[in-house]
Amino acid sequence: MAEGTAPAALGDSEFDRDTAVAARAAEPGAYDTGLSRGWTIMGAVNGGYLLAVAARALRDALPHPDPFSITAHYLTPSQPGPAVVRTQQVRAGRTMSTGQASLFQRDEQGNEVERLRVLAAYGELDALPDDVRTSAKPPVMPGYGDCVGSESAPGGRPVAGDTAILDRLDLRLDPATAGWAVGAPSGVGAIRGWLGLADGRDHDPLSLLLAVDALPPTAFDLGLKGWTPTLELTAHVRCRPAPGPVRVSLTTRNLAGGLLEEDAEVWDAEDRLVAQSRQLARVPRG
Amino acid sequence: MAEGTAPAALGDSEFDRDTAVAARAAEPGAYDTGLSRGWTIMGAVNGGYLLAVAARALRDALPHPDPFSITAHYLTPSQPGPAVVRTQQVRAGRTMSTGQASLFQRDEQGNEVERLRVLAAYGELDALPDDVRTSAKPPVMPGYGDCVGSESAPGGRPVAGDTAILDRLDLRLDPATAGWAVGAPSGVGAIRGWLGLADGRDHDPLSLLLAVDALPPTAFDLGLKGWTPTLELTAHVRCRPAPGPVRVSLTTRNLAGGLLEEDAEVWDAEDRLVAQSRQLARVPRG
Repeated sequence: MAEGTAPAALGDSEFDRDTAVAARAAEPGAYDTGLSRGWTIMGAVNGGYLLAVAARALRDALPHPDPFSITAHYLTPSQPGPAVVRTQQVRAGRTMSTGQASLFQRDEQGNEVERLRVLAAYGELDALPDDVRTSAKPPVMPGYGDCVGSESAPGGRPVAGDTAILDRLDLRLDPATAGWAVGAPSGVGAIRGWLGLADGRDHDPLSLLLAVDALPPTAFDLGLKGWTPTLELTAHVRCRPAPGPVRVSLTTRNLAGGLLEEDAEVWDAEDRLVAQSRQLARVPRG
Repeated sequence: MAEGTAPAALGDSEFDRDTAVAARAAEPGAYDTGLSRGWTIMGAVNGGYLLAVAARALRDALPHPDPFSITAHYLTPSQPGPAVVRTQQVRAGRTMSTGQASLFQRDEQGNEVERLRVLAAYGELDALPDDVRTSAKPPVMPGYGDCVGSESAPGGRPVAGDTAILDRLDLRLDPATAGWAVGAPSGVGAIRGWLGLADGRDHDPLSLLLAVDALPPTAFDLGLKGWTPTLELTAHVRCRPAPGPVRVSLTTRNLAGGLLEEDAEVWDAEDRLVAQSRQLARVPRG
């Protein structure tokens, strides 16, 4: 966040404006939106941002507000510009509902092309009981001040090319998992960092969907370069996050057959595991 | 497997017969099937079996044979008896395709009710490159002969009531994770075991979908009793399994807010991680 400016409020921030959806009066369940160039990297629209846009349409379409479990299949590359999200209520129960969404954009010929398809279960986080009985531990990593921002990475920003999304994020990597930026990946397959939004907006369940896919890919820490296209990503949002940046821990344990899984854990300032995700992605060819 | 009988062959076994689907001539993409009473426990049709039925219909409907990533949302309780699976090809690419399926049954009034909805990416496991670079290690557990079958559990079968599925499985639990059967759960939230099919059929990608949801729930090892209904389950099949029983390792790290995640890893006889899954389930009320 720039010095001397007030943090952006939940509901009035870059992320909120760029994920806004508008219900079509003439087509029930359909929402117009515009994919922002601000959440791209190397020309590609970030998959977590796309998921958040679809999730926001589903939040409007379903009787419950929060994505407890949400799966996206990425079908074709999204582009900055207009898009429409079509939603369907699959089931509505008392405490949970299930919905489906597809995000479409028009190609050069004006034909609609499906970019991603989403299946999700929504509930109300604030209505859940308070029981917590977890054996999961927060990631062991330095404090926010001892992690490295992209602006201070040796040799400059670690990712070459179009890095618009880095201007929207307050991302500080654990130096132990940032060696790839200077040609010395650890080989472990882990990336850890603190993640806030650059304008100071706090996290909410929707921005956690961004958080699980906003760090550099674990493939970088394995010494692989290039793009790691996500085939499928499933995220569970388990708790409303406390104010402040979250800690995100990414790990890959099984790279095989040209594919890898990438697991994310997101921990809030109160040491609660607020989100988990797993994605299946293609190994970079580079 | 009963002594003195030949093992059932892939394609000609209880599992194959009970997951068989028949394309409806008059309705493209629709498949009739019958849910078998043989895969029920405590009156409920096993979620992994249901996933395998839907996956089999998708295998027929899509141009690629193997479920690389498959997600199911369980909407209403399935019953043994007739069902129809309606499939949709979402996208067909050169090496992968995406499909959707819904399984319906009729209620007492004759109305169709959706039981589960599935979204999946299919590819061809045998066409994947041979690269393996994994840091994941097989679970540390006793050999098949030193694990305990349900028939030899102290006090008899560990699960009371209708346990038809146990007759179809060759399930041998690591004694360290079977204490709950005699009232002494470890409290760790882990269940490990060897899993084959009782008629000796070897595993294939479809039966791995059964395998990820066929062991007793981790909730038992946490000292919780009763049913753990799955809201959503996502499985990745990463490799065609070698012949013989697989090792399945289940863990739960975060029980909170009345929900828990259950992760499964499935390892084959050649020490390959052949499948991974995660499900979000409700904590038993008991």
